[in-house]
Amino acid sequence: MKSWIPIPVDSDFTIHNIPFGIFSNEGQARAGVAIGEQVLDLSAIHDAGLLEGIGLPTGVFGSPVLNGYIALGKIVWTATRQRLIQLLSLGNSELRGNENLLKKCLFAQRDVIMHLPVQVGDYTDFYSSREHATNVGTMFRDPANALLPNWLHLPVGYHGRASSIVISGTPFHRPKGQTMADDATAPTFGPTRLLDFELEMAFIIGQPNALGEPVSVEKAEDHIFGMVLFNDWSARDIQKWEYVPLGPFLAKNFASHVSPWIVTMDALEPFRVESPKQEPEVLSYLKSTGEHNFDIALEVQIVPDGQAPHTICRSNFKYMYWSMAQQLAHHTVNGCNMRVGDMCASGTISGPTPDSYGSMLEISWKGTRPVQMPDGTERKFILDGDTVIMKGHCERNGIRIGFGEVAAKVLPAKN
Amino acid sequence: MKSWIPIPVDSDFTIHNIPFGIFSNEGQARAGVAIGEQVLDLSAIHDAGLLEGIGLPTGVFGSPVLNGYIALGKIVWTATRQRLIQLLSLGNSELRGNENLLKKCLFAQRDVIMHLPVQVGDYTDFYSSREHATNVGTMFRDPANALLPNWLHLPVGYHGRASSIVISGTPFHRPKGQTMADDATAPTFGPTRLLDFELEMAFIIGQPNALGEPVSVEKAEDHIFGMVLFNDWSARDIQKWEYVPLGPFLAKNFASHVSPWIVTMDALEPFRVESPKQEPEVLSYLKSTGEHNFDIALEVQIVPDGQAPHTICRSNFKYMYWSMAQQLAHHTVNGCNMRVGDMCASGTISGPTPDSYGSMLEISWKGTRPVQMPDGTERKFILDGDTVIMKGHCERNGIRIGFGEVAAKVLPAKN
Repeated sequence: MKSWIPIPVDSDFTIHNIPFGIFSNEGQARAGVAIGEQVLDLSAIHDAGLLEGIGLPTGVFGSPVLNGYIALGKIVWTATRQRLIQLLSLGNSELRGNENLLKKCLFAQRDVIMHLPVQVGDYTDFYSSREHATNVGTMFRDPANALLPNWLHLPVGYHGRASSIVISGTPFHRPKGQTMADDATAPTFGPTRLLDFELEMAFIIGQPNALGEPVSVEKAEDHIFGMVLFNDWSARDIQKWEYVPLGPFLAKNFASHVSPWIVTMDALEPFRVESPKQEPEVLSYLKSTGEHNFDIALEVQIVPDGQAPHTICRSNFKYMYWSMAQQLAHHTVNGCNMRVGDMCASGTISGPTPDSYGSMLEISWKGTRPVQMPDGTERKFILDGDTVIMKGHCERNGIRIGFGEVAAKVLPAKN
Repeated sequence: MKSWIPIPVDSDFTIHNIPFGIFSNEGQARAGVAIGEQVLDLSAIHDAGLLEGIGLPTGVFGSPVLNGYIALGKIVWTATRQRLIQLLSLGNSELRGNENLLKKCLFAQRDVIMHLPVQVGDYTDFYSSREHATNVGTMFRDPANALLPNWLHLPVGYHGRASSIVISGTPFHRPKGQTMADDATAPTFGPTRLLDFELEMAFIIGQPNALGEPVSVEKAEDHIFGMVLFNDWSARDIQKWEYVPLGPFLAKNFASHVSPWIVTMDALEPFRVESPKQEPEVLSYLKSTGEHNFDIALEVQIVPDGQAPHTICRSNFKYMYWSMAQQLAHHTVNGCNMRVGDMCASGTISGPTPDSYGSMLEISWKGTRPVQMPDGTERKFILDGDTVIMKGHCERNGIRIGFGEVAAKVLPAKN
């Protein structure tokens, strides 16, 4: 299938994708989809009557967050995407032939500002890559017993901070905090010395469940609207001192960046793969059959200030041991309620080889194996002035879709 | 100071209190204050022009959450409360003398439904009672080293679930989950066998801070609108199996109950006390002088189905080792942003003696010291059909204010 909109080779935003986001240029932030190098203004084409008959209330795309649209449910998501594919298809002239409307509804992506696409009620971070959990356990505990006893029985997760989830491109200052040096008798306060990224993806809840009403693993995927790239910035020295016994807190709540375009589960459908085999067998509320993982190629680049991007790892979402369906079934099995717009991140997505590890902690192995950069510097962790970029895309049978990128620059700590 | 409204002896809602909440009877949920056994409808008296000149926008009290009002800031909070005290004072006839208005703005508390008073963006739970942390460390680790190394240096905290915070009176089903018996080789799934309450209080953010902009310990109290009682329900068997290494998750996110009336910091002002002495000395960003703790008497009752309430512990907020100002300064020192309506709970508030412990885990000492109930049954943890009630009040120099109660009944696990 082709579009009458020019799509560059290797574009993430082909007609097979149609990812949803919130953008602004002149006027209020509103909903759009990415196509090629452009944004299609959904508010404008809905106002023009091109999205009739699929259950979309007037003005639903004029909101500065997608929550209202997403709450309409899966049938509407699918119908909207199908209609947009139709309108953008080569041979369709309903939009293409309306020159006045085109001027008001198509904008170059480089000319718009992207915003956080949803209001996030709660944000949960899982820890679902076996390779990542094994690496961390090997470094900090016992290589022979790297995984903790619960890890193979349930998708370990914890609650993170929703307020500090920000959109790609938002610079932030190196956080300060309390740390305890290995040989010290008292903690000290200052900028983190071990700032790290974590290569993650997050899914966004599209269908809520009431308090007390679990979502079964079979129905869980119907509750997911789509996915984004997620950089779960972490201050390793703060984390090490604070996290016992209640988990990460200030080490991770200073900023988390997401990519602006939500790729829908419908778009991801052709890229399903099986999950890694789970042994020991999981409890029945976590059991599912079929393909519930997705083949999404991931890449992290570091861009030192004023330099060219340097790829520091390549991983894949398919390595995840626990599927999103299992994560959501587990999360709600006690009756915990999810709301539209809630985000659940995967945890660091590491692959089997060192060049596929999803954090500097693992890539530099606690700083013992510094990475040589093209400019002659080295990296154990992330330095001031560095921009970290994460990318993700799927490709199969000549069809490509992608997530664009999530990028963020680290500024020096404030005085 | 007396009110023309009848105030029963030992009422929590004297004219010295004026706590804010959201109620409904006929019509939409809206803002009110508690006075004696009645609710004063703030929306009605504002519409009638009785709250002029203090910077309150039209309709601000007609919202079903207090966030909009709270966002107006501390000067407005104080002015509103002063004006309400004036209107309710014996001798003032502005409201008392307006019979038509009185019929539309005063309702018996027993005739109204209370709602969650704020939209909670993020919820954080601290762990700031030294006695509680010592008890837990003694039971599960080493009595000689009960406190973990970081505990005396920073207010340990973690992110909790905002979506499952519900108003007092909301019944809930015993949660199910995954647990691992001591002698087992594989986990099992079923209703928690160790359901517990945690006696806590929570403060509500009134003044936000931007991402990257810490709130100093000196200014922290200005960012707090008020306090509520908080029951942080916990499933101890689920918690034990899941919490390593990232903290509590499904053990605590199935329901947390709050009391409906937010007692303002202005009302709490006469009840300041000094905090416990902090040794070792804390880092400078946590240092404060003066009285930053509050003398709030607390009590927990268990009400077996169809029985009378039985008081199971009495504690006091003044036992808290870390003050709210220190908690907030620590929470934001890395730049983490707080939004209006965010909640920060204290952690279980235990006192020095067994009858002042704030959870069944401590009161029954892991179930080894069952509590005898008046009906002849015993409690190690909370049973189906039990209602748990928490109360709190302050009394000094003949002045009394209080929080009312937070109550919740445990229903059997769903099939």
